[in-house]
Amino acid sequence: MTLKVYLSGEIHTDWRDQIIEGARDLDVRFDGPVTDHEASDDCGVAILGREDDKFWHDHKGAKLNAIRTRRGIGQADIVVVRFGEQYRQWNAAFDAGIASALGKSLIILHGPDHQHALKEIDAAALAVAEHPEQVAQILRYVLTGKLP
Amino acid sequence: MTLKVYLSGEIHTDWRDQIIEGARDLDVRFDGPVTDHEASDDCGVAILGREDDKFWHDHKGAKLNAIRTRRGIGQADIVVVRFGEQYRQWNAAFDAGIASALGKSLIILHGPDHQHALKEIDAAALAVAEHPEQVAQILRYVLTGKLP
Amino acid sequence: MTLKVYLSGEIHTDWRDQIIEGARDLDVRFDGPVTDHEASDDCGVAILGREDDKFWHDHKGAKLNAIRTRRGIGQADIVVVRFGEQYRQWNAAFDAGIASALGKSLIILHGPDHQHALKEIDAAALAVAEHPEQVAQILRYVLTGKLP
Amino acid sequence: MTLKVYLSGEIHTDWRDQIIEGARDLDVRFDGPVTDHEASDDCGVAILGREDDKFWHDHKGAKLNAIRTRRGIGQADIVVVRFGEQYRQWNAAFDAGIASALGKSLIILHGPDHQHALKEIDAAALAVAEHPEQVAQILRYVLTGKLP
Amino acid sequence: MTLKVYLSGEIHTDWRDQIIEGARDLDVRFDGPVTDHEASDDCGVAILGREDDKFWHDHKGAKLNAIRTRRGIGQADIVVVRFGEQYRQWNAAFDAGIASALGKSLIILHGPDHQHALKEIDAAALAVAEHPEQVAQILRYVLTGKLP
Amino acid sequence: MTLKVYLSGEIHTDWRDQIIEGARDLDVRFDGPVTDHEASDDCGVAILGREDDKFWHDHKGAKLNAIRTRRGIGQADIVVVRFGEQYRQWNAAFDAGIASALGKSLIILHGPDHQHALKEIDAAALAVAEHPEQVAQILRYVLTGKLP
Amino acid sequence: MTLKVYLSGEIHTDWRDQIIEGARDLDVRFDGPVTDHEASDDCGVAILGREDDKFWHDHKGAKLNAIRTRRGIGQADIVVVRFGEQYRQWNAAFDAGIASALGKSLIILHGPDHQHALKEIDAAALAVAEHPEQVAQILRYVLTGKLP
Amino acid sequence: MTLKVYLSGEIHTDWRDQIIEGARDLDVRFDGPVTDHEASDDCGVAILGREDDKFWHDHKGAKLNAIRTRRGIGQADIVVVRFGEQYRQWNAAFDAGIASALGKSLIILHGPDHQHALKEIDAAALAVAEHPEQVAQILRYVLTGKLP
Repeated sequence: MTLKVYLSGEIHTDWRDQIIEGARDLDVRFDGPVTDHEASDDCGVAILGREDDKFWHDHKGAKLNAIRTRRGIGQADIVVVRFGEQYRQWNAAFDAGIASALGKSLIILHGPDHQHALKEIDAAALAVAEHPEQVAQILRYVLTGKLP
Repeated sequence: MTLKVYLSGEIHTDWRDQIIEGARDLDVRFDGPVTDHEASDDCGVAILGREDDKFWHDHKGAKLNAIRTRRGIGQADIVVVRFGEQYRQWNAAFDAGIASALGKSLIILHGPDHQHALKEIDAAALAVAEHPEQVAQILRYVLTGKLP
Repeated sequence: MTLKVYLSGEIHTDWRDQIIEGARDLDVRFDGPVTDHEASDDCGVAILGREDDKFWHDHKGAKLNAIRTRRGIGQADIVVVRFGEQYRQWNAAFDAGIASALGKSLIILHGPDHQHALKEIDAAALAVAEHPEQVAQILRYVLTGKLP
Repeated sequence: MTLKVYLSGEIHTDWRDQIIEGARDLDVRFDGPVTDHEASDDCGVAILGREDDKFWHDHKGAKLNAIRTRRGIGQADIVVVRFGEQYRQWNAAFDAGIASALGKSLIILHGPDHQHALKEIDAAALAVAEHPEQVAQILRYVLTGKLP
Repeated sequence: MTLKVYLSGEIHTDWRDQIIEGARDLDVRFDGPVTDHEASDDCGVAILGREDDKFWHDHKGAKLNAIRTRRGIGQADIVVVRFGEQYRQWNAAFDAGIASALGKSLIILHGPDHQHALKEIDAAALAVAEHPEQVAQILRYVLTGKLP
Repeated sequence: MTLKVYLSGEIHTDWRDQIIEGARDLDVRFDGPVTDHEASDDCGVAILGREDDKFWHDHKGAKLNAIRTRRGIGQADIVVVRFGEQYRQWNAAFDAGIASALGKSLIILHGPDHQHALKEIDAAALAVAEHPEQVAQILRYVLTGKLP
Repeated sequence: MTLKVYLSGEIHTDWRDQIIEGARDLDVRFDGPVTDHEASDDCGVAILGREDDKFWHDHKGAKLNAIRTRRGIGQADIVVVRFGEQYRQWNAAFDAGIASALGKSLIILHGPDHQHALKEIDAAALAVAEHPEQVAQILRYVLTGKLP
Repeated sequence: MTLKVYLSGEIHTDWRDQIIEGARDLDVRFDGPVTDHEASDDCGVAILGREDDKFWHDHKGAKLNAIRTRRGIGQADIVVVRFGEQYRQWNAAFDAGIASALGKSLIILHGPDHQHALKEIDAAALAVAEHPEQVAQILRYVLTGKLP
């Protein structure tokens, strides 16, 4: 049966493409958030009408994005969450919390600098990786039992 | 019936005390993580034996803390999550995700600087406040219907 | 064990008091929404800060009230929903839907005029009554087996 | 994966057709109640036998319709509920409550006149729209990330 | 912690009293249906108004009784269901099905004559007993580890 | 989407065939128990080895049948339970209880003689019918909105 | 609908192949753990980096394997667990516990020597078999009603 | 709130007493299986009647014990499972699986010899300890934040 993988978190590097490329011969369906930063920020007011207050501007957008995010995480077998070098990335950690509470298999992807700050999230994960190709290798192992 | 409130997040200011003080005449039971930073970091190795590798040192501690945290969030009616000015605070966002997925009433507490970065979490909350006394006022209103 | 009853809906007549009075010798704990109409409407802005836009004014208040409402319905064994003669009362029907989906025993209270309009909600209920004293009689029967 | 959308509420205008038309090139499957008003009212007695009492006539019909409604809402990713200008529409609000308790993404569609009366339901929604084309735009954004 | 036991089924012999007597020194709370046959049959019309049609007379009563029954089974740790010598007793088997689907520990009590007819229900039970005192012995063993 | 219907209960008349025939042009998938009485009674010992004691003979068979029954009911949208004129049929009532607790839409099929004895089960159903063709008509209405 | 069967436990004999062969004409989809012992033991360090400490070496591998195992058990209708003659096989018993708590139909496969030691697990199963062909016969009976 | 701890597994040493003694000043309620080996083996036939076949003798006992075990694990916040030096102890691993699937915090207690054989269970745990006093220290830390 098709393995469903949700790719959450950092949207400024091509890590999603690397994983998808590395798993291109496997029976995997990938999903993830809208990665067009501007569309993601402005979707609420673009569709539902402008807001003067930045809080409500963001609020409307975040809720529209939640329609996609909650569905994607809810349908996934595996949720991969990547933490990059910049920004607060609280929504990535928030997604990890949702995935964990829903009993999804969690794979966390981050560099060694974030090890201490991510210890609670890493402790809830079934794998902590540093490089996207490791995630592809995990997907291959889970589906086929083959090691790299 | 006693209102059960879990106070998650930032541990370097006295915001928990302010809320508890503001609600001291109400039928509320507060819970939260271990706020002794050092104990929280080292509990795993102190009890279960030392690790050479910092990752596993942190891992053992994070898992022991999870015993307390998951139980506290799981039993709560309301989960308050405070984001302070410093540190990554990914565990706070992670707790918020868990609480949201479990259907807990979420109150987020943060200053205006973090508004954009916290928009996804704020959008899942039933209240976004700036000051601890507002949280106490919410608890009072929820229990008694009285406004400040 | 104490029977937990949530009294939802119309807030302009004394129907809640009649039920509570009729069940005063029974082991029942009653809960319900904040029935001070003005406080209920303004709680959001009174605690969390004013809004220029009426939509967001109402939004903030409705979310604070939801903290109380969801908890009350979630803890109840029985949810009584009364539909009165005036207003839209969509929040009463909304509460009935939540209670039904959570598997709560639903008692609907309304006059004969609303019979056709409430048929879907009545069909999900375990009792449809016209007068508050009938609700008290039901609570007595459920707890003691005694009929009026 | 096909997005499953349930269209609940008002049955006297062509809003469902507008949404379906606006989403005709998207991978969406729509469902909704029986919109033939007369069939919906009389289905119970037509199949299961006549009733003298209008209450039981309606009761039998409402229960047959519930077989379809509960299944449709239960299978949906998104539940859209439209409140029109006429009638009590309590069943629409009831459906919204069921959808909310089941954790469905809720989109509410109504004109500005109903803003205050629908505040509790709007507060539980991930989007509040005024026009059917906005709903189609949301579905497009959720599936493709494209804004209008 | 108090062991909660629901005693479902046959209401024409004193088997409930025998179990309660046999467990009188144990920390057990017993619950069960209304055992006054007449009150149980007529409660619906007595409180909510008469019906000409026997089907609806029974329907209203069965729903009121369901308020008590569902709560009692839902709160129980153990559900004991007794099948006697007379009547169809379909409601006893129905209660057993509900209890089984809710994951309750099921104890079935019946004479040897019913062995074949009850095989599906017995197969879902954790104990099949013939005499009420065996049920009391089971409760004692479960709470104290003592055998008769 | 294919409507999944489980046909439980009486196995001595052709009521299943009548429903299946009446719904032959609809998108319905039917499931049900093994209706070969002898195979159903003896499956346990035939596969897993003989038992001297009739209780365990039946027990082994009932458990094998439960593998099929629980899966069928668990996957169904609608569970139809027919009570015939003969036998105790406790397993039919047991299936109805399981279906009810799992939130399945329940249709009960029985003659007028059983009305009083089945009142608790009828009260939990969304339809009570007397003839198999009524069930087929319900399935048609639920899927297409067409009345007979 | 395809019957989903998870084959857990002993990996040193060809029992899985025997069952798959015996059910080759049935609509069954089989799943199970990675049965390459070495890959299963070393997958964690092979993909995620070496560990000096055997405990963490095993820990990383066990968690990767859990991604596959939890998904397989979670999707299964039936979980078959085989206990062989050698090794502790605690992971087989652990899988059986998970399957039981998730409400899966459990079939246990073991020789007569283990009867007493496996009594708690056997007692939670719907079938206890000695030979793989019996499992194939059960699958055939469950799907077709045919006995061997 | 009282911390509920279930102590599962090995019954031949005094490890339970050591933990209870080490936690005697804490707000903890302990539960566990019947530890009288003989009573545990024979409870089924002692109460429900003798069986000639050892399989059914054990079966009846295992089911009675399951009434206690499932309730104890189901009510626990923390499940501690100890694996000793002797016997197969499959029921301990089975309890661990149930606890894990129910989302309980799992603490595994075993000597270094069993490390490899228990890797799957250890990987699902929040703590792996070697000595009973470590478990008491964990309970103290979880409740008070104090380290040894």
